[in-house]
Amino acid sequence: MTFFSKRDLHFQLFENHQILDLTKYSYFKDHNKETFEFVLDAAEKIAENHLYPLLTEMDRKEPQLVNGQIRIHEGMKRIIRQFGEDGWINATFSYEEGGQQLPNVVHQAAGFIFQASNYSASVFPFLTTGAANLIRTFGSQELIDRFTPNMYNGKWQGTMALTEPDAGSSLSDLSTSAFPTEKQGVYKIKGQKIYISCGDHDACENIIHLMLVRIDGAPLGTKGISLFVVPQKSITTGESNDVLTQGIYHKMGYKGAPIAHLMMGTDDSCEGFLVGEANKGLSYMFQMMNEARVGVGMNACAIGTAAYYASLSYAKDRPQGRKIIEKDPSLPQVPIIEHADVKRMLLFQKSVTEGALSLLIYCAKLSDLIHVTNQNEKEDLTLLLDLLTPIAKSYPSEMACLTTSSAVQVLGGAGYTTDFPVEQYYREARIHPIHEGTTGIHGMDLLGRKVLLKEGKALKLLLSEINETIKIAAKMPSIEERGKSLALNLTIAQKTFGILFNKASENPEAYLADATLFLEMLGILVISWQWLKQGIIAQKALDENKGSSNYYQGKLMCLRYFFEYELIKVEGISKRLMSEDQLTIDMKNEWF
Amino acid sequence: MTFFSKRDLHFQLFENHQILDLTKYSYFKDHNKETFEFVLDAAEKIAENHLYPLLTEMDRKEPQLVNGQIRIHEGMKRIIRQFGEDGWINATFSYEEGGQQLPNVVHQAAGFIFQASNYSASVFPFLTTGAANLIRTFGSQELIDRFTPNMYNGKWQGTMALTEPDAGSSLSDLSTSAFPTEKQGVYKIKGQKIYISCGDHDACENIIHLMLVRIDGAPLGTKGISLFVVPQKSITTGESNDVLTQGIYHKMGYKGAPIAHLMMGTDDSCEGFLVGEANKGLSYMFQMMNEARVGVGMNACAIGTAAYYASLSYAKDRPQGRKIIEKDPSLPQVPIIEHADVKRMLLFQKSVTEGALSLLIYCAKLSDLIHVTNQNEKEDLTLLLDLLTPIAKSYPSEMACLTTSSAVQVLGGAGYTTDFPVEQYYREARIHPIHEGTTGIHGMDLLGRKVLLKEGKALKLLLSEINETIKIAAKMPSIEERGKSLALNLTIAQKTFGILFNKASENPEAYLADATLFLEMLGILVISWQWLKQGIIAQKALDENKGSSNYYQGKLMCLRYFFEYELIKVEGISKRLMSEDQLTIDMKNEWF
Repeated sequence: MTFFSKRDLHFQLFENHQILDLTKYSYFKDHNKETFEFVLDAAEKIAENHLYPLLTEMDRKEPQLVNGQIRIHEGMKRIIRQFGEDGWINATFSYEEGGQQLPNVVHQAAGFIFQASNYSASVFPFLTTGAANLIRTFGSQELIDRFTPNMYNGKWQGTMALTEPDAGSSLSDLSTSAFPTEKQGVYKIKGQKIYISCGDHDACENIIHLMLVRIDGAPLGTKGISLFVVPQKSITTGESNDVLTQGIYHKMGYKGAPIAHLMMGTDDSCEGFLVGEANKGLSYMFQMMNEARVGVGMNACAIGTAAYYASLSYAKDRPQGRKIIEKDPSLPQVPIIEHADVKRMLLFQKSVTEGALSLLIYCAKLSDLIHVTNQNEKEDLTLLLDLLTPIAKSYPSEMACLTTSSAVQVLGGAGYTTDFPVEQYYREARIHPIHEGTTGIHGMDLLGRKVLLKEGKALKLLLSEINETIKIAAKMPSIEERGKSLALNLTIAQKTFGILFNKASENPEAYLADATLFLEMLGILVISWQWLKQGIIAQKALDENKGSSNYYQGKLMCLRYFFEYELIKVEGISKRLMSEDQLTIDMKNEWF
Repeated sequence: MTFFSKRDLHFQLFENHQILDLTKYSYFKDHNKETFEFVLDAAEKIAENHLYPLLTEMDRKEPQLVNGQIRIHEGMKRIIRQFGEDGWINATFSYEEGGQQLPNVVHQAAGFIFQASNYSASVFPFLTTGAANLIRTFGSQELIDRFTPNMYNGKWQGTMALTEPDAGSSLSDLSTSAFPTEKQGVYKIKGQKIYISCGDHDACENIIHLMLVRIDGAPLGTKGISLFVVPQKSITTGESNDVLTQGIYHKMGYKGAPIAHLMMGTDDSCEGFLVGEANKGLSYMFQMMNEARVGVGMNACAIGTAAYYASLSYAKDRPQGRKIIEKDPSLPQVPIIEHADVKRMLLFQKSVTEGALSLLIYCAKLSDLIHVTNQNEKEDLTLLLDLLTPIAKSYPSEMACLTTSSAVQVLGGAGYTTDFPVEQYYREARIHPIHEGTTGIHGMDLLGRKVLLKEGKALKLLLSEINETIKIAAKMPSIEERGKSLALNLTIAQKTFGILFNKASENPEAYLADATLFLEMLGILVISWQWLKQGIIAQKALDENKGSSNYYQGKLMCLRYFFEYELIKVEGISKRLMSEDQLTIDMKNEWF
């Protein structure tokens, strides 16, 4: 079963985004194409041999809460241990930390393979990496030494514990509290957390929660939130640390990964360890959340990719009907891939998922460059990545709901049954516009913060990057027109933003009311740009008669598809964004 | 729990579509507003007391195949019997047939209530009605007498058995066969059928399949298909009629209704009874399928409606965050309905579902008028309904996937859990773009057949209806602009069709390649028209100071929403439809 394209992943990494550039920097100097390919091949093997075979079973046999502990699929024990032993969890960390100084972009690419093979299974190590990263970046050496080694080796699970019953999107309203003890940096924790992914399970010996908590007496709102390490069991005694699993959430998809409801301090004996300085927890968390957000986009893109290949394989095999111009019923039926409408649905999936993957790999490479470049470059790259993050999170997430839907549609009735994996992909895609910040939150982040940063410098940087690509396209007769069309649509978007911006200070509610649409519009433009880039490379490869011309032809067709069927949406969205009708503000609750 | 709006259903029936007009015709003369309201109230009671309470349970406890028979939820026995005893199954049939001569539009409206409360449960009587309708319309008096009474009273389940492993969308490739016996009209049936809704279950004493079968030696293709009644058990002996339940399909949603894989004639003893003339089966089936198709649109609209009310109720209750202009964390959080982006998601659901309901009620009324008007009127009304049917089926079906997705999004993380019904609605909506003809098939039906009928007369009739509404709007200052905007978009669509039409004869594959997009475009226009109509009535009611001004204000806001956020999509789609780039035809299989 094909769930991703190795050819395309290599194209994205080596041809499109030229990640070998990174090996010029000393942090990555031990790496080269062979080490990167070795990592990707290893990921593929694990995905094929261990993750994909459990895809369906982990969906059918959901985790259950039994006697206060969540039991997950038996097979995850071995998988998590292997992720640890093979060094996947801390692969990007420095040699001194036991890591391999692997570029994030390669780690993300390997993650993409895992996610495409079995999204639920891929979540466990991903969360441990994120949690360990918080400790190693902001925690004391003591915390690092105590907690990270067993996280790296997969014995302990890491989590990000943010959400509470009254604080989901509005983190400023967190109420879980920390009370100082006699021991320096050690607090008693009291409160509850909900929707904690991998918040409890029986495949690891301990669960290490990176938890946002308000220290007793701290200021209200976001300025009074601190970050704590709260282990499920005391790491000295191995006894309970008074973190109770109060419940498990059953959900539409992504069922293999358990989501817990946790109660801390019901016996007044839950100990938490402050990470870094008090009241800086949210800013610490947000630095990691940016990476997690690009990661969510990658998850969605991976699920969409798996669904695309499942539907492509079906479309090639399934005979049904005849060509429009051929109705003779005595002739054999043709495979449905011969029908234009089916090709349209396949091209939609291919162009959206490969376009999104291109953006995600670009963002992951940016994060590596930020890590190794000098201060000047770093600042620009950080601005650019900050601007692209809400798009890299939301575009793949929103679109994966639609592309997996197209995959179901390609299979028709078969796609709605549990005999094929596409219905599972459809269910698994749906979480991504929600977790790590809803699309609405990201729209406001983009329009309310990111485009305004440093007087719009981030937006200018992005435009200049896009214009570079358009300039190259202008020299290629077969692509030139697409470049012009992107330039035209960019102008429309700029005009739209100009008109919107007039409202920013006097009427911020109206300015932000359609932030989700602004995000959608910018998403389409950014992916169009990624397609122009890919088209340029494909055309050059064809001109130079490089191998696998089918592959490059496919790229050029996707460029055409995206511009013909997706870019055309920009004008309509822009029309709405420029409209004076503030109806979502005018609407009264009692009129619903 | 609110799963539909009685107020809105009454508005659609009595204010918007003036269904009391029907009582002027003799067939409906015994009816009046009171009898209609009595029927709707009775439906509401059944839905509230019997169907809605089983909604979640029927999803969790799926039907299972046990010892060759499908066992469904215990509660369905009572529900099906009640549907029969209360006369729901044959309510629209004549008094002579034991029916109530109820207009189809009222029957559909009652069905809408059932579907909104529990889609799976609503399917059982709906299918029996359709199957009985085929027998009474095309069958001999003998068949009618033998089969329909126990279908009407709910003792026997009816089904429509069309699909086979090699014949889904392509019905012309059916291979299930019938062999003549010595008895007139009685054949031996041999073959298999898949995806048969309610094809076997233990809540009825017998299952009566209306089956498409090819009589041995009949012409290939659609011209050799006949319609048979094939009971699961012999109705004389009660013994098996050699119809075996070979399997059950488990599916993503709509789990309460079983879908069977049937084998006929493994013992060479399956008897089928020919309905009407040989080789006319497909045309018989299609006459009923048109009604079934509008019915599918209604199902999708009903599920979307239930999801809308679930998310509306959550949005009013759930406090989270503060208004954009108010960030003081010491103030209490506001209900999320106060956020413009949440209002946008609610208005999207409301405007799409109520717009679709308006179209569906309009179509149902057309079918009643066709039944009672004279030949001249009948012809035009039939053309109009034929044209609207693919839209009435597909627009609500496609959009319910998106509106239920918005409902999930309004609830955020909670919406993804099984603690709330929206995730179930999301799963249940997804079947509708597939069954009773996929959206792609309906696109081709619309562009390849319906708009071309009688040299485009159907399209002219539709345009003239829409223009009537625009003329009325032109006299109302508050709505005039919306009418102009619709007129402008109609012009764009006409121009688009003109350009497309040039390809129809010389390049039919290109003409039809984007038929799905043409269907989408016409869908948006038709729903915009329905909103203009509703807006006119609402504005008049407000001008005349009629009661419940909140309700009418809501209608006007939906008109604004639909024109501001949905109608703007027409230009982009039109741009693609007029493009010369035939990329979905040019795309080669090996390029994927």
